[in-house]
Amino acid sequence: MRVLGVDPGLTRCGVGVVEGVAGRALTMRGVGVVRTPVDAELGDRLVAVERGIEQWLDEHRPEVVAVERVFSQHNVSTVMGTAQASAVAMLCAARRGIPVALHTPSEVKAAVTGSGRADKAQVGAMVTRLLRLAAPPKPADAADALALAICHIWRAPAQNRLQQAVALHTPKGRTR
Amino acid sequence: MRVLGVDPGLTRCGVGVVEGVAGRALTMRGVGVVRTPVDAELGDRLVAVERGIEQWLDEHRPEVVAVERVFSQHNVSTVMGTAQASAVAMLCAARRGIPVALHTPSEVKAAVTGSGRADKAQVGAMVTRLLRLAAPPKPADAADALALAICHIWRAPAQNRLQQAVALHTPKGRTR
Repeated sequence: MRVLGVDPGLTRCGVGVVEGVAGRALTMRGVGVVRTPVDAELGDRLVAVERGIEQWLDEHRPEVVAVERVFSQHNVSTVMGTAQASAVAMLCAARRGIPVALHTPSEVKAAVTGSGRADKAQVGAMVTRLLRLAAPPKPADAADALALAICHIWRAPAQNRLQQAVALHTPKGRTR
Repeated sequence: MRVLGVDPGLTRCGVGVVEGVAGRALTMRGVGVVRTPVDAELGDRLVAVERGIEQWLDEHRPEVVAVERVFSQHNVSTVMGTAQASAVAMLCAARRGIPVALHTPSEVKAAVTGSGRADKAQVGAMVTRLLRLAAPPKPADAADALALAICHIWRAPAQNRLQQAVALHTPKGRTR
């Protein structure tokens, strides 16, 4: 399974491609950051994010795009830009018929470090170890994008098993 | 000046086209709502919003797209969808090189009713009167989109004069 992880943002949008299956060693296929100028018009920044994401989709042809789920609760000053950048990433994937998966920051942290409250350094250290990199990817947005992709690869089988179990144990005709 | 107003939303995205200049009678060129199914995947809903906005841009060729400025403060449950739909509208406009203008809900209400705290019914009534319609446009999202377009037409000359005044009275070399 090849997954493009996207840590959405207008100033820095982290992107990382990881290939692998749960239970086997993972391979990083690419990592980077799509940047847009802070002083540009909002519409133009969204166009730049779109262009960047399209390039990553063209080059890496992921089977799934995993995007960080944005909450309106935390950090009011940046949440709008994050929501807008994530909308562009989801739009680009859905337009190509690529499934979009959303994972919360704590799901991602728990997947790669074992704790939903791990800090940036811990996430960076685990991403470096799991992908056998020489050094933690910089900036943190790039490491977070790789962590999202890893989280998706590891959670996907559990999510599938859960859906199958629910389907098996749900009495017919019962609405869930 | 022909303006497409967009009241962003995922379930109902209001769109309305108004033509005119400040100080003269305004004309409605079109009004409607882009709808997406509540039970569809988020990515697919964003693609549907994109398709809808593109159709309105194709048909009406507006010179400006006026979008409601979304704040993260109010109504946490719907604000993410609103931010995402507005991102798609801004993206569609900017991709074509059409300028995007953002106006706050209270700016729009103040422009068409004289009060920034007017209710939906009052906005609907004034939109109906100003555009000489037989009845208020329904749903409210459609009326709000027309109000946004009217607001932009009326505020644009003042904004231009303000920018000119600032340019005239700002000492050279001073950063604003």
